Amino acid sequence: MRTQVVIIGAGPSGLLLGHKLRQEGIACIVLERQTGPYVLSRIRAGVLEQVTVGLMEQLGLDARMKAEGLPHDGFNLADGERLIRIDIKGLTGKEVMVYGQTELTRDLMEACGSRDLEVVYEAADVALHDIESDAPYVTYTKDGVEQRIDARFIVGCDGFHGPSRKAIPESVGRGFERVYPFGWLGILADVPPCNHELIYANHERGFALASMRSQTRSRYYIDVPLTEKIEDWSDDRVWDELAIRLGPDAAAHITRGPSLEKSIAPLRSYVFEPMRHGSLLLCGDAAHIVPPTGAKGLNLAASDVHYAAEAMLGFFKANDNDAIAGYSAKALARVWKSERFSWTLTKLMHRFPEDGPFERRMQLAELDYIASSEAAQRSIAENYVGLPV
Amino acid sequence: MRTQVVIIGAGPSGLLLGHKLRQEGIACIVLERQTGPYVLSRIRAGVLEQVTVGLMEQLGLDARMKAEGLPHDGFNLADGERLIRIDIKGLTGKEVMVYGQTELTRDLMEACGSRDLEVVYEAADVALHDIESDAPYVTYTKDGVEQRIDARFIVGCDGFHGPSRKAIPESVGRGFERVYPFGWLGILADVPPCNHELIYANHERGFALASMRSQTRSRYYIDVPLTEKIEDWSDDRVWDELAIRLGPDAAAHITRGPSLEKSIAPLRSYVFEPMRHGSLLLCGDAAHIVPPTGAKGLNLAASDVHYAAEAMLGFFKANDNDAIAGYSAKALARVWKSERFSWTLTKLMHRFPEDGPFERRMQLAELDYIASSEAAQRSIAENYVGLPV
Repeated sequence: MRTQVVIIGAGPSGLLLGHKLRQEGIACIVLERQTGPYVLSRIRAGVLEQVTVGLMEQLGLDARMKAEGLPHDGFNLADGERLIRIDIKGLTGKEVMVYGQTELTRDLMEACGSRDLEVVYEAADVALHDIESDAPYVTYTKDGVEQRIDARFIVGCDGFHGPSRKAIPESVGRGFERVYPFGWLGILADVPPCNHELIYANHERGFALASMRSQTRSRYYIDVPLTEKIEDWSDDRVWDELAIRLGPDAAAHITRGPSLEKSIAPLRSYVFEPMRHGSLLLCGDAAHIVPPTGAKGLNLAASDVHYAAEAMLGFFKANDNDAIAGYSAKALARVWKSERFSWTLTKLMHRFPEDGPFERRMQLAELDYIASSEAAQRSIAENYVGLPV
Repeated sequence: MRTQVVIIGAGPSGLLLGHKLRQEGIACIVLERQTGPYVLSRIRAGVLEQVTVGLMEQLGLDARMKAEGLPHDGFNLADGERLIRIDIKGLTGKEVMVYGQTELTRDLMEACGSRDLEVVYEAADVALHDIESDAPYVTYTKDGVEQRIDARFIVGCDGFHGPSRKAIPESVGRGFERVYPFGWLGILADVPPCNHELIYANHERGFALASMRSQTRSRYYIDVPLTEKIEDWSDDRVWDELAIRLGPDAAAHITRGPSLEKSIAPLRSYVFEPMRHGSLLLCGDAAHIVPPTGAKGLNLAASDVHYAAEAMLGFFKANDNDAIAGYSAKALARVWKSERFSWTLTKLMHRFPEDGPFERRMQLAELDYIASSEAAQRSIAENYVGLPV
């Protein structure tokens, strides 16, 4: 088989890019190791920046997002008693959209048929070949039969554990990593949210986040040591802890309910450089991971897709080879700034085991300063809504 | 002997407070362990915020500062090649004054005679007594004779190592501390500065600061491990290292000259709470230390003096007991924010031994972000010129 672009991975970045290329008449095939329902079952972030909303608009796939998503024009930082509201709309003129990654992926998936975007699910043993040449190809096994697709480019949208990044020789690439000494214990429940906006809390007992997917579905998190077992956290224990950490005001409005999903996810900062080698481009988690604080993961994937699509268009439509050559530097400039924000917000809102009483006071002084300074609030707000693409 | 306020320490905070109290007709005596010339020989910071300039104006002691000081309306952050200018005047409408602590202290010292401010130099073995009562007293030895001064209040302006803070019982007070794994090697020379504004540099090889006391006297620093010996740093070696770390542009304008002073100073963040116990108030380094990054030390002493003078006036002139009770909380709110800024700027501009390649990239990403964001620049600028008193 032959196509112009093989996309590895049918998560949001792979599907966004696939739709974008098809819209421009560029031939592509998406390969996905899992089934469609499995991809949809992954519970992830749900706060969309303008870059992500804009891509869905450009694709004409924004109808359900606009109908069901919740535009937010602020969010809150808390430190036990106090709530500091960051008026993102007032400070930046922009807003964010609360719409679950699952829903966005579903919209993209359901449009594949009508948009002529071919996705091969359950493609096993995907391997990349000759990526340093102008004629790379991908092999995989489907229903026990080995397949091969030749293409001009391969785009790795296959997440942190996929084969794409690993295909780049060690002599060329370099990973930068920070692993955090705690994880987020998340609970999803069909109950109304305790607050109409997100609350990030840094309580003496640790971090908590009150979030939502819709008016009737809430998503809460607390941080726990990585040694904790999810079996030891009954729903009641999680709700009790949330009520303490989020502070009295939020606690009074928490509606408890049985968990639809409950799990502990580790936190990691990771960036791989470069994001292109030869005919292989990387997008999203394949190239970088952010801790979930600030909800940048999906949005960074979307900005990578924006730059990757721009590069492909330059190459296929305008015969501009430099478009491909410039991809990595353009994408990475934004990646590092988002990594910085996610890291900074993680450091501000979590207790680190290595931190002593002085560092705790520095967190509280930072929150005091933020509460008192428009410039500090504006800086947080412009990062939260997303820096310019 | 009897007075209203005994001030321990004739550094800038003690002298500023003494003059302030005398101006209001409050009786006070300043005790200093060292000689006047020794106090003047201590080389310290030289960037004054509005709070410090304002105190000198209120005292009518600002003539020489206004004539010889250098108003600065910007400063620079560098990371090897790049120079990021923070336009503090444009961003905040305010400026800072470059005027050495030595010069300010000299102005205060020379005015003591005409202002009827009594300073007892070479007061040995100063001890505080009955500070929990309304009738505290101080004893000391002068020329071999033990002396006693009774007062209504004692104000400790005697620095980090003085007896005042130590007079507060351990059951009452609490210190918060962060010690840094490097020191600043400073060199003072009678050469014109390499740049008309300060440059803080974070080079691969470490930190550097280009600063000045006047148009003809420069003050430079580099960070070095605390294990370094000053004997191993010839003037030439210091100049060579500065030329590398400050970047090519600054290096081209460095004028070398023999060092008038050269020493290595450790960096420390420290805050003691509370800043008042009974009839004892603490001001300046007696209560808190900042690393020199951002030049907050003297300015924090000045804001403490502002609050302490306000408290004394409230007590002696308006019979307001709450004025004294509120001193610690008012002073500490500003102290913690300045500690935060000094700590943040120190972390941004120095290489820490415990930091790896990811943390280095976070510093560069932060500098990239600052270079690109007016909100980030405004936040730095408003801290640099000094948050409101």
